[in-house]
Amino acid sequence: MKLSGKTAERDRQRRDARPLLPVNRPRLPDAAALLPYLRRIDESRHYTNFGPLESEFRLRLAGHLGMGPECLTLAASGTAGLTATLLAVAGRATPQKPLCAIPSYTFVATAVAAAACGYTPFLVDVDRESWALDPRVIAALPERDKIGAVIPVAPYGKLCSVRSWEQFRIETNIPAVIDAAASFDALPEISAEVPIVVSLHATKTLSSGEGGFIMAENPPLIDRCLRALNFGFFDGRNSVGPSINGKLSEYHAAVGLADLDGWAQKRSSFIGLANLYRQEASHLGVSGLLHATESHANPYVLYETLPGTAGVVLRELREDGIDTRLWYGGGLHRQTEFSTCPRTAMAVTDDLAPRVIGLPVAVDITAGDVARVLSAIARAEACPKL
Amino acid sequence: MKLSGKTAERDRQRRDARPLLPVNRPRLPDAAALLPYLRRIDESRHYTNFGPLESEFRLRLAGHLGMGPECLTLAASGTAGLTATLLAVAGRATPQKPLCAIPSYTFVATAVAAAACGYTPFLVDVDRESWALDPRVIAALPERDKIGAVIPVAPYGKLCSVRSWEQFRIETNIPAVIDAAASFDALPEISAEVPIVVSLHATKTLSSGEGGFIMAENPPLIDRCLRALNFGFFDGRNSVGPSINGKLSEYHAAVGLADLDGWAQKRSSFIGLANLYRQEASHLGVSGLLHATESHANPYVLYETLPGTAGVVLRELREDGIDTRLWYGGGLHRQTEFSTCPRTAMAVTDDLAPRVIGLPVAVDITAGDVARVLSAIARAEACPKL
Repeated sequence: MKLSGKTAERDRQRRDARPLLPVNRPRLPDAAALLPYLRRIDESRHYTNFGPLESEFRLRLAGHLGMGPECLTLAASGTAGLTATLLAVAGRATPQKPLCAIPSYTFVATAVAAAACGYTPFLVDVDRESWALDPRVIAALPERDKIGAVIPVAPYGKLCSVRSWEQFRIETNIPAVIDAAASFDALPEISAEVPIVVSLHATKTLSSGEGGFIMAENPPLIDRCLRALNFGFFDGRNSVGPSINGKLSEYHAAVGLADLDGWAQKRSSFIGLANLYRQEASHLGVSGLLHATESHANPYVLYETLPGTAGVVLRELREDGIDTRLWYGGGLHRQTEFSTCPRTAMAVTDDLAPRVIGLPVAVDITAGDVARVLSAIARAEACPKL
Repeated sequence: MKLSGKTAERDRQRRDARPLLPVNRPRLPDAAALLPYLRRIDESRHYTNFGPLESEFRLRLAGHLGMGPECLTLAASGTAGLTATLLAVAGRATPQKPLCAIPSYTFVATAVAAAACGYTPFLVDVDRESWALDPRVIAALPERDKIGAVIPVAPYGKLCSVRSWEQFRIETNIPAVIDAAASFDALPEISAEVPIVVSLHATKTLSSGEGGFIMAENPPLIDRCLRALNFGFFDGRNSVGPSINGKLSEYHAAVGLADLDGWAQKRSSFIGLANLYRQEASHLGVSGLLHATESHANPYVLYETLPGTAGVVLRELREDGIDTRLWYGGGLHRQTEFSTCPRTAMAVTDDLAPRVIGLPVAVDITAGDVARVLSAIARAEACPKL
């Protein structure tokens, strides 16, 4: 679609007066919603170290997800959850197994967790269709014998196949931990062999402010994760395994409980905003690929530009005061800290990373905001250079 | 002092009806005190990742401690602060420098932080007078060339000499980070070369629930610590150094701010309880050594029994429903996870650890509670076996 010069000029004048539109504006439970939980903290005088609210949040979360409470444990953050789970299933790196295979197309937390357990991240390109690691690729790597663990990522909360990673685990004997940070409302099936780690950070859908959880249909493994999150303690104060301090405090449990109280509403807001995006994209005839799921709450709406056009789209959005984010940057191999890590060729990551653009998301985003975003994209698509 | 058989019997009957006395019962700001801060969170919709409350807490804390705000950064926990500071000053372990020297007489967090940076903890015995590491001992170790960093601990918040560690740093070129977890109200002098890490955990004096901070008269070093606490990011989203996720959320900042609001009162409560202990010990003629400082707020009151008598004292306290804690257990070399770490001989730790007993502490402990604790100790001391 093309705009006339006059329309474009009018648009330009109008947008000068507009407020900035942030790429992610979380809304967590307000003070009134937290108050009943805070009063319970006042009564218990239990502020952290697995208090009654942490316990209740764990029970309610497990119930919500349809699993037994012995299959889930909470963590201070998604990164803490990932680190502790890696310690629980694979232990620290050894001279024989120094590598942890992870996708390059992910947020840095994946690599940071691997490094915190002593592993050198081994960066692997993702599959073109799934944007995720392919277990067959890992199994076929020449470096396979040096790999102590693998962290497949469910990219942007997209579903990934746990069964294929269970199969991988059996065939290769390499432990796997799934980083499903953004998948709260679309979790893969629970597994006994392959634990799944979810983030409850403010930028996700359900949130405890900072937080995360680990799920596995394997209570002894969950116990080992819990131990790894609490100085290696389990019963008593003897440290019996590798660990960090990654406990969820009662304050963050209070936020998570209150957010769970309002989840039905929050969930429909997320689904509603994805709907708004889809309708407006269709209305404006936007031709790039919009990733906005209506099947579940997802903290990302992504716009996949055609190759070579991302620069124009990003510029047009920026000029209209619309904030965007390449959530995974250029891939981990382009982050200074991980640029010297061993890796595979990166054809898919190098193609995807610069052109999958995170668009503004908020539970209270307006139809006008969404129209503004997609109009800017439509203008970019109409640009003669394309 | 000795009790008659009749008195002892009467005591025994009385205490059967008594409630358990916990060893540490924190009291943090109540919901009403948190409310103004929570309302500000509602307005800002900033929940973590260095929001306005985190910033205000950092400024006020620096002001309280009489230092510039550029000399202090907050962390999600004391352990997170210690880990990030170690990454900032020494980086990860290398094959040439695999060891991090730490005292065996400390809480496991010290070793956990060292291990999270890839170091093998090298456990060193403490000095008999200071209960802390002696820099001369470290400098003289045969393993010195393999030591990549050292974490001296201010045991139970006792003051330790930063100057001697600065000197050590200059002479040996080994980076040092001081673990002053419990020292909030008795911090050593700030240093440019040797950063100091403090815990704000609920069991400490000032508290944010879970939390901690790092101080150093060295803004570029503080910047590196901040980066190490936030995925290696500093300006923007490029990871430029080793890191963890150790940010203090706005919720924990709110708790810390409210606790700082009430600090004058809380401080005198801690000093008051130390006073109660000293007066009652003197009144009852308790002969072991009571460590209860009146010069500053300290989260520990310790009772140092005479060698060989700890068992009787612990039993008498337990039988009276009084909870106690050997806060540092038997020393790290007796913790399963660290029992295989390289170490020095442990004469002092093995002597101190079993007989320095943590007694009940709470800002609202009563004179009656304190009398109950010290009466039990007096009974133990009067026991014929002693």
